Amino acid sequence: MSVEIRPAAVADLPAMMVLVRELAEYERLAHAMVGTVESFQAALFGERPTAEALVALVDGKMVGYAIYFQNFSTFVGRAGIYLEDLYVRPERRGSGIGKQLLARVAQVAVERQCQRLEWVVLDWNTPSIEFYKSLGAEPLDEWTIFRLPPAAIARIAQG
Amino acid sequence: MSVEIRPAAVADLPAMMVLVRELAEYERLAHAMVGTVESFQAALFGERPTAEALVALVDGKMVGYAIYFQNFSTFVGRAGIYLEDLYVRPERRGSGIGKQLLARVAQVAVERQCQRLEWVVLDWNTPSIEFYKSLGAEPLDEWTIFRLPPAAIARIAQG
Repeated sequence: MSVEIRPAAVADLPAMMVLVRELAEYERLAHAMVGTVESFQAALFGERPTAEALVALVDGKMVGYAIYFQNFSTFVGRAGIYLEDLYVRPERRGSGIGKQLLARVAQVAVERQCQRLEWVVLDWNTPSIEFYKSLGAEPLDEWTIFRLPPAAIARIAQG
Repeated sequence: MSVEIRPAAVADLPAMMVLVRELAEYERLAHAMVGTVESFQAALFGERPTAEALVALVDGKMVGYAIYFQNFSTFVGRAGIYLEDLYVRPERRGSGIGKQLLARVAQVAVERQCQRLEWVVLDWNTPSIEFYKSLGAEPLDEWTIFRLPPAAIARIAQG
């Protein structure tokens, strides 16, 4: 089995969208999946990119991907890396591909002198939680994410 | 009382650091506060800025600030806004300054066609949670943040 991990290219996007949709289904969030090849192209390869992506290939076929971006911690006073997605197709799990993708993201964090690498996990996703804990990741149990949906953003913007 | 909300400038950083430290103390995280004027200058005004800041002034004196950056949602397929900090000095709370800062951040989200505005709150910070809920923000209770500290990042980067 020949595994290759490399930065994503524009030509990878149609295949990557298939995997993004698989992840959305696994997370029971397929209804929230509205991204398109065009919106991904703008976000990852546009004039002002907002995220970066890696793909994992086995014998030339895409079996996983990672999407990450730089965030900022006020208390650390510098950028960190936020891992938006880490996905490996079910039939390819258990062979270290997820760990290889994460290793590459960790290398980016080291290169950029980031002090933190963070992501979020659904509480019921026990296999992922076990995997992340085995790597030394710590759950930040005392923090809760709050989100303003578009209608509330528009209302608040009016002051 | 004359309130002004405007983008932060390099000259604001020393005063802003005083407020960042106040927030760290309020959040019982003063031990985690290692950011400096220099690291903030690099992150906010360097060659490749990773965050943006607003300051709130009353009669010319800084009484609050907001720090935010663009994040990315795979399922939405585009950038959102992540609000890293929103702080108003205790003696100035209750006069709408926090809401004005948040309104300005929401305006940025609208201008950039962001579908989400997100942030995190400590579970015991009831006054903030009540404020955020009153604005229409929704807690994402089923998600937990995981964080890799520097030693684990370095270990994983080695593959």
